Amino acid sequence: MRVPNADYGVLSPAWAGSQTAALTSDHAFIQALLDVERAWSVVLADAGLIPGEHLAPINAAADADAYDLDAIADAGVGGGNPLIPLLNAYRAKVAETDPAAASSIHIGATSQDIMDTAMMLLISRAGAQTLATAKQAVVALENLAREHRDTPMVARSLTQHSLPATFGWRVSHWLQALAQSGQHLQETLAQTALQWGGAAGTRASLQDFLTRAGRSGAAATNSTVTADELIANLADQLGLQNPAPWQANRIPVLVQANSFAQLAAACGKIANDVLISARSENGELGEPLAAGRGVSSAMPHKQNPVLSVLIKNAALTAPQLLAQVYTGASANVEERADGGWHTEWEALRGLVRTSGAAAEKTHELVSGLRVFPDRMAENLARHGELLATERMVAHLAPQLEETGHADAGQGKKQLQGLISRALSEGTPLKPLLLAELPRDVVTETDLNDLLDPTAYTGDATKLVDHIISTYTDWSHS
Amino acid sequence: MRVPNADYGVLSPAWAGSQTAALTSDHAFIQALLDVERAWSVVLADAGLIPGEHLAPINAAADADAYDLDAIADAGVGGGNPLIPLLNAYRAKVAETDPAAASSIHIGATSQDIMDTAMMLLISRAGAQTLATAKQAVVALENLAREHRDTPMVARSLTQHSLPATFGWRVSHWLQALAQSGQHLQETLAQTALQWGGAAGTRASLQDFLTRAGRSGAAATNSTVTADELIANLADQLGLQNPAPWQANRIPVLVQANSFAQLAAACGKIANDVLISARSENGELGEPLAAGRGVSSAMPHKQNPVLSVLIKNAALTAPQLLAQVYTGASANVEERADGGWHTEWEALRGLVRTSGAAAEKTHELVSGLRVFPDRMAENLARHGELLATERMVAHLAPQLEETGHADAGQGKKQLQGLISRALSEGTPLKPLLLAELPRDVVTETDLNDLLDPTAYTGDATKLVDHIISTYTDWSHS
Amino acid sequence: MRVPNADYGVLSPAWAGSQTAALTSDHAFIQALLDVERAWSVVLADAGLIPGEHLAPINAAADADAYDLDAIADAGVGGGNPLIPLLNAYRAKVAETDPAAASSIHIGATSQDIMDTAMMLLISRAGAQTLATAKQAVVALENLAREHRDTPMVARSLTQHSLPATFGWRVSHWLQALAQSGQHLQETLAQTALQWGGAAGTRASLQDFLTRAGRSGAAATNSTVTADELIANLADQLGLQNPAPWQANRIPVLVQANSFAQLAAACGKIANDVLISARSENGELGEPLAAGRGVSSAMPHKQNPVLSVLIKNAALTAPQLLAQVYTGASANVEERADGGWHTEWEALRGLVRTSGAAAEKTHELVSGLRVFPDRMAENLARHGELLATERMVAHLAPQLEETGHADAGQGKKQLQGLISRALSEGTPLKPLLLAELPRDVVTETDLNDLLDPTAYTGDATKLVDHIISTYTDWSHS
Amino acid sequence: MRVPNADYGVLSPAWAGSQTAALTSDHAFIQALLDVERAWSVVLADAGLIPGEHLAPINAAADADAYDLDAIADAGVGGGNPLIPLLNAYRAKVAETDPAAASSIHIGATSQDIMDTAMMLLISRAGAQTLATAKQAVVALENLAREHRDTPMVARSLTQHSLPATFGWRVSHWLQALAQSGQHLQETLAQTALQWGGAAGTRASLQDFLTRAGRSGAAATNSTVTADELIANLADQLGLQNPAPWQANRIPVLVQANSFAQLAAACGKIANDVLISARSENGELGEPLAAGRGVSSAMPHKQNPVLSVLIKNAALTAPQLLAQVYTGASANVEERADGGWHTEWEALRGLVRTSGAAAEKTHELVSGLRVFPDRMAENLARHGELLATERMVAHLAPQLEETGHADAGQGKKQLQGLISRALSEGTPLKPLLLAELPRDVVTETDLNDLLDPTAYTGDATKLVDHIISTYTDWSHS
Repeated sequence: MRVPNADYGVLSPAWAGSQTAALTSDHAFIQALLDVERAWSVVLADAGLIPGEHLAPINAAADADAYDLDAIADAGVGGGNPLIPLLNAYRAKVAETDPAAASSIHIGATSQDIMDTAMMLLISRAGAQTLATAKQAVVALENLAREHRDTPMVARSLTQHSLPATFGWRVSHWLQALAQSGQHLQETLAQTALQWGGAAGTRASLQDFLTRAGRSGAAATNSTVTADELIANLADQLGLQNPAPWQANRIPVLVQANSFAQLAAACGKIANDVLISARSENGELGEPLAAGRGVSSAMPHKQNPVLSVLIKNAALTAPQLLAQVYTGASANVEERADGGWHTEWEALRGLVRTSGAAAEKTHELVSGLRVFPDRMAENLARHGELLATERMVAHLAPQLEETGHADAGQGKKQLQGLISRALSEGTPLKPLLLAELPRDVVTETDLNDLLDPTAYTGDATKLVDHIISTYTDWSHS
Repeated sequence: MRVPNADYGVLSPAWAGSQTAALTSDHAFIQALLDVERAWSVVLADAGLIPGEHLAPINAAADADAYDLDAIADAGVGGGNPLIPLLNAYRAKVAETDPAAASSIHIGATSQDIMDTAMMLLISRAGAQTLATAKQAVVALENLAREHRDTPMVARSLTQHSLPATFGWRVSHWLQALAQSGQHLQETLAQTALQWGGAAGTRASLQDFLTRAGRSGAAATNSTVTADELIANLADQLGLQNPAPWQANRIPVLVQANSFAQLAAACGKIANDVLISARSENGELGEPLAAGRGVSSAMPHKQNPVLSVLIKNAALTAPQLLAQVYTGASANVEERADGGWHTEWEALRGLVRTSGAAAEKTHELVSGLRVFPDRMAENLARHGELLATERMVAHLAPQLEETGHADAGQGKKQLQGLISRALSEGTPLKPLLLAELPRDVVTETDLNDLLDPTAYTGDATKLVDHIISTYTDWSHS
Repeated sequence: MRVPNADYGVLSPAWAGSQTAALTSDHAFIQALLDVERAWSVVLADAGLIPGEHLAPINAAADADAYDLDAIADAGVGGGNPLIPLLNAYRAKVAETDPAAASSIHIGATSQDIMDTAMMLLISRAGAQTLATAKQAVVALENLAREHRDTPMVARSLTQHSLPATFGWRVSHWLQALAQSGQHLQETLAQTALQWGGAAGTRASLQDFLTRAGRSGAAATNSTVTADELIANLADQLGLQNPAPWQANRIPVLVQANSFAQLAAACGKIANDVLISARSENGELGEPLAAGRGVSSAMPHKQNPVLSVLIKNAALTAPQLLAQVYTGASANVEERADGGWHTEWEALRGLVRTSGAAAEKTHELVSGLRVFPDRMAENLARHGELLATERMVAHLAPQLEETGHADAGQGKKQLQGLISRALSEGTPLKPLLLAELPRDVVTETDLNDLLDPTAYTGDATKLVDHIISTYTDWSHS
Repeated sequence: MRVPNADYGVLSPAWAGSQTAALTSDHAFIQALLDVERAWSVVLADAGLIPGEHLAPINAAADADAYDLDAIADAGVGGGNPLIPLLNAYRAKVAETDPAAASSIHIGATSQDIMDTAMMLLISRAGAQTLATAKQAVVALENLAREHRDTPMVARSLTQHSLPATFGWRVSHWLQALAQSGQHLQETLAQTALQWGGAAGTRASLQDFLTRAGRSGAAATNSTVTADELIANLADQLGLQNPAPWQANRIPVLVQANSFAQLAAACGKIANDVLISARSENGELGEPLAAGRGVSSAMPHKQNPVLSVLIKNAALTAPQLLAQVYTGASANVEERADGGWHTEWEALRGLVRTSGAAAEKTHELVSGLRVFPDRMAENLARHGELLATERMVAHLAPQLEETGHADAGQGKKQLQGLISRALSEGTPLKPLLLAELPRDVVTETDLNDLLDPTAYTGDATKLVDHIISTYTDWSHS
């Protein structure tokens, strides 16, 4: 089974072995090219423009399994794209059965029509699965956010403990990002579009074909069919939109590329958080365990967070793939670009594949995420009472001043002095405050309330509910 | 007027001197920061939560002209963002007039709230102008496409002449791309959003402030106002949307960044075409002339296409700026990222600035584009009759076979042989065909028709009309 | 032969079918992994540290053809790299022959040792071929520059005709860039280095193995061999340098990546020039013809410059691949990075592959480039006399003033006025100057000399010789 | 002091306020442009080719402080670069003193000569400081590595504890990377080069000037001076190398860009490690404290690692800046590129600035890094005895088999079973092993040794010494 120049994903564990990989392989793309060619012949036959009996061999030969992809890839260098050698091979295979049928393929089309449309078809097919996965992951996040809406956890800012929050609060941001990028993907997938116009996009060859067909009477049953109608039928067959030819307008490609890159960014944030939280010293989260994943016989204590590592890998890769698609589009020129167009392909497929695989891993990650509230509580307690000093100062400074224990405007300064003293002396804050502050300003009960971090989470839980409810209709659609 | 560490755009002619530059300068961003802080104080005062008399000094000091931006930039290093030193300077300036008023600023907010919201405000402001410019450019393209819908021009594919088309046909693709990216920009500008939640996004500090205010009776007239209402009022004041806090969800940033990058790509395609067409050897187009632009006293024959050069520069720059925003987002982690967030800023501003300036130049370029139909005709004539051989072969091959002058399936081969002979001998095709083909197959009149390139443009003009009509409601809105 | 998830280069004609492709395929990388493992066992056996008879099965099984790469790629997801499943398969295959031999593999090593070292081996192997190709291309450029050192051609600046030059002059810049990037590649290939240190890079496991071996007397013949000596032997076996372990220092990777990216940029410039020059309207250059390359039966006049299109494609792709390697390195952390390391692989291989293939195509392009001096002369003549007005003005302005036909400082202005008049009236310049300037200032013979563009090429030919001589020793080495 | 369109670094705390910022500002670039122009006049005057008395006004006016940089930036749009308006302003200022002297500027030069050479001058100047800073940082790392060569610390792999090591071991990798990138920078700075050739690089205008000067006898004292000699003198004046003109060969630019990007990556790794280690839960390292840096009055327990955050920001930015320089070079064409050249500038300056500032911050960071060996020991102890099970198994498995307590090949399996039991039961490993293993296989003393993590660091300390000694001559040079 040796195929020397093939890549299997050996250097790309971010997508190797994923479901998306099968939907975005060279085989899948070749199949999409064949599907487009075949569908066009079907449309022409349905209109009586080519003999109906040509369809049997045309359909039979439209199977990617029947072609030597390695040879087609190599031969693609001659014309700069793989469609040219594939088309030759396709025609030859059809001609084996019915020589006349070979001329009923690719009528009025140009290689860019097939390449652009097949790429959209591949995006549409792989994207549909990715979208479904993203929705499942959002549903899992809704459950996770709901379950842990009240689980105390310290928030971090620039790596440092900032204020108290809950784990559900953090999850609600994962949810926002994944749902927003998923909704965006859904919108852009609905825009995947046919690109059909012939060599210069003008449909000259197709119109001339129709003129000849009309003259010859070949199209007896549908002699009045128009190019517009035929192309609309093709779009329907392929499940794609049907705008004007866009061979020299690459915005439709950028729109798709961007959606997948956004999805990778949303997944990457989740992975980054898990990677921090699954460290021994932090211990707040653990990846779902799976046989043979992330373990080492030499180092039995290790549990590598491999899902997150590979999602992070995907998220670090997507920006450059996106830049490559955009760089290709920036080199767009005239009616078919001399290198810019070719620069889109590999990166576009790469984005669909990498982001789709990242979504799959993210779904698995968040569905089975192990959450350790005890460690969250333990970490929260590291700076426990200090996390709420902002509130304590806000409450007590005016009381110090009102009760005459501090001059006007000096209450805050006095309290911050006490905090600094506790920090520098390494002593607990509460006893120090009790010792230094008069009882008519604050009691121990007051201080217990004011310095309780778990009571200083603002609207966190309310917002968790709000965020869940914002996206749940979509995620369950 | 020496400001040693400032940049004026000396190395960035792609945006220097543009209208967008003023809307995206450090001054504009500092003004946006001050506008956000001030608006929040106004909202609190309207709710009776801070004394109304504090607003006068707060408003008066909210003028970027009053601050030393160089010093603020330098001091921003201490906390990692410019808001911290700006806020200190702002409070100090307010306190000069009314010391008490200084404490009525930034209540319950965190620096990320102000930074994120100010960036959205800057995007909203600069984007509104860019959108208007893009619409004007689309209108200019509609006029250009209409004027030249029938002007013959050869289409190019991979640099080579492909099929006949019209200049209006090419313009219709410029129009598609610019209108689609403009429409996308309009949609995403409508999503520019407030980001408001305090240090951990939980609104803990704000809720505590409201609790204290309620207790103290300070908020006599509006004692029942909620945090939600206050924040909604702030969004209204700033003309921004009001979703849940998104400090740890950077999708809203990616959405904006992408729109501007798409616009740059659409502009870049136009520039690329003009750069090819304004070459001496091609000569089909010329940039609008302007005093002092693109001329050289040493080389008087030169007319440098400077607008296009700088638009191309912008289009080559945007993909990397976009990748930088995405890379920043990919490093997003926890409740405030340790470097990822900071990586967004310069690139995000860069995209808004570069793309906005590119849109301005594109508007100028297409509004005054000099079109030379004679050179288009001359270039078209280079391969004149050869451009339509596809059609000639399609028509004559079956006739050759039907009339018995060629065996079945050999007509095409015979005609291609004649074409090859003409090409290799460097002789005109038509006389050769007339000499070699029987008159019952083709007459000179037939050949004149079949080989006329200007009659082989398919649906080009019809599609030009269709494309114009697709976008004209939007461009005139 | 169906391998569903494999890529054959269908979307990458920039490298598909190249010689480099075979040296950089997944198969080649797996072979490099096996070569590293095997070489280490050989080193250990040579030192008497493992039984010599284990080598036969170890060598026999070290053949990539024997493994299911698709399965290995998929299983690589479990541990985040392909070495882990490959090692399992390798050991199993060895054990089929000799169960004991399986424990003589991978002693004291970690997967990163093998991955990093194998990547360097792949770079070293593919790079050697690319370097040879680059030298051949430079030799071809030397010949081309020599042949056309005096062929007149107009230089272009920002697309416009600037001053007269020669085609050899342009080629000398191709030569400079390709030779400089080739020399840089040669220097960095000499730095490809072993990375060897075990799980934390400390060689703890290896040292412990040696301790146990020493104690048991197993290493009878070489009981005093040190870890340093073993590792030096491994480096010799593999033809790699032997620095300290660098598992957490990725500069060695960046150094390699950059060399290949520079090479792609040098090739891309050549392609860009050919793409402009091979346009019908320019016609100064043509790509070498090859059967089936760049031709179209539907458009027989077309000769697509496919080599240049694909080289340009490679040059547009390399910057983003380089950015990906750097982004991976920027996410480097601790002793083995959690995603940053993984992000290097695909991009690093991509750079080696894309640049190597671009060098191959560039070699073919410049070796058979078709040069059309007549078209160069024709294009030069478009602005012929105007190209040297700079010189004419410099010579005549002082003479006008010295002879009293112009006031001091007005000579230049007067002459520029005449040039402007010729340009605006569309009349030739020389007759106008002769009519307007006195004979004691300038004669027709003088003007013929002063306005002859081919006599205004400065040091162009001298510099061509200089540039050729600068690099020719290297290119023939 | 309002300059509306200027940037001060408000959005770029990664470089704002740095020493490098002053060396890379627009002011510094304009000064470099003026320095190049002035130096050229000096060279010409020294050769007697322009009047010596012209130098006084030419030198006097060559001060960037005298120009309105905002106006020059804006006017740069007209010709696509800032040199054109600057040259006009420079000539006008010189003419104010001596009108004739204005014609002694820019003789035989083109704007690209000045732009390219000034950029190299800026790189040379800023790079010299960055190199010095990098060496100081390496010296600080040598001290740090030496001090902590034996300080026990656990190594991490994919975020997880892997094997025992020392903090000096980790630092030695910081040192390697920083020293290697510094050495590379030193090599490439030595290659900063003059670019001088006139409009087409051919020196046509300069040679014609020399011809006229020779004829007129103006150059009495040096009538035989050659263009080569003049240009060599200019290179000497500016401290730059003097290769052949390279206006259409951008490899020299890529070489410089890459060096600075490598430096940023080396700094970024250090920052990434500090960011992890300065977390509350980890606590192994702390940034040096500085007044006002990283503190928050609202959250007094916070000590934001701002230096590391901004270094990380720089490291995340550099890859895209590098890609932009390469993308510009990939669009290089003909004798002066139509946008590609312009795309280099901002990114090239950005790399020099960002990396230089990152080096400054890294120097400060590592010079004052706070190291907490107690926390390192505490974290190491988390998996203490488990970290060395690899060694324990390697030693005891054969003894189990030799003593007949395990069947051949079953010793390892038996021991791993005990480890798994300890892990799953959460019990310490050593008592379990003692309970389950016979005393003739292992004693408590043996086990203490075999499971002591601090005795399983292999060559770590030896390699620390080796790495220090490898770079110390360079760092102290």
